[in-house]
Amino acid sequence: MKRFGWIGQLKPPMTRKYIDLHANTWPAVLRRNKDCHLENYSIFHKELPDGTHLLFSYVEYTGDNFEADMRRMAADPEVQRWWAECKPCFEPIENLPPGEVWALMEPVFYQQ
Amino acid sequence: MKRFGWIGQLKPPMTRKYIDLHANTWPAVLRRNKDCHLENYSIFHKELPDGTHLLFSYVEYTGDNFEADMRRMAADPEVQRWWAECKPCFEPIENLPPGEVWALMEPVFYQQ
Repeated sequence: MKRFGWIGQLKPPMTRKYIDLHANTWPAVLRRNKDCHLENYSIFHKELPDGTHLLFSYVEYTGDNFEADMRRMAADPEVQRWWAECKPCFEPIENLPPGEVWALMEPVFYQQ
Repeated sequence: MKRFGWIGQLKPPMTRKYIDLHANTWPAVLRRNKDCHLENYSIFHKELPDGTHLLFSYVEYTGDNFEADMRRMAADPEVQRWWAECKPCFEPIENLPPGEVWALMEPVFYQQ
């Protein structure tokens, strides 16, 4: 099993939309997450004093081919519709590949 | 069980020290984490393009009195020595209570 941490940044006027979307994540997206071996999946939000809205995403990948599972996810029309709703909420935090909004973090510590 | 996400910020010149400390976390600190019901505990780091160093900490609390466990942790002399090493590495991200360096985030999404 592999743990991933990603950081993202929301456009302040889009924060409410992003939070509301995730309070009622579409069942097809949840099914595809499971099918692609993403487990114990959390997203947290924090507004900083300067008005920056940060997201942190934590997930445990339990499959054996992450790239293939992510390609399968990206090919799902329902997931594509979901991302079309979510991605405009982001202010990419660094120079990411086209279409990417989450930046991978480096693990520093782990204790079981 | 309750999941917590915290965000922290490191002073750039202290980043290496913080990472090195956590690559060899003291056994007494690890024992106290376990004893205080902190499990599946990860810390991630990301340097942003503007030179900001962010930390994200994810932990699962499996006890039934978080405040009492945290008081017990704070009373441990070895933990106090550990924090005396770690806390000077932080640039508190907002106006936190005295001695605090991690800011609690809000959960937005969870899937088992």
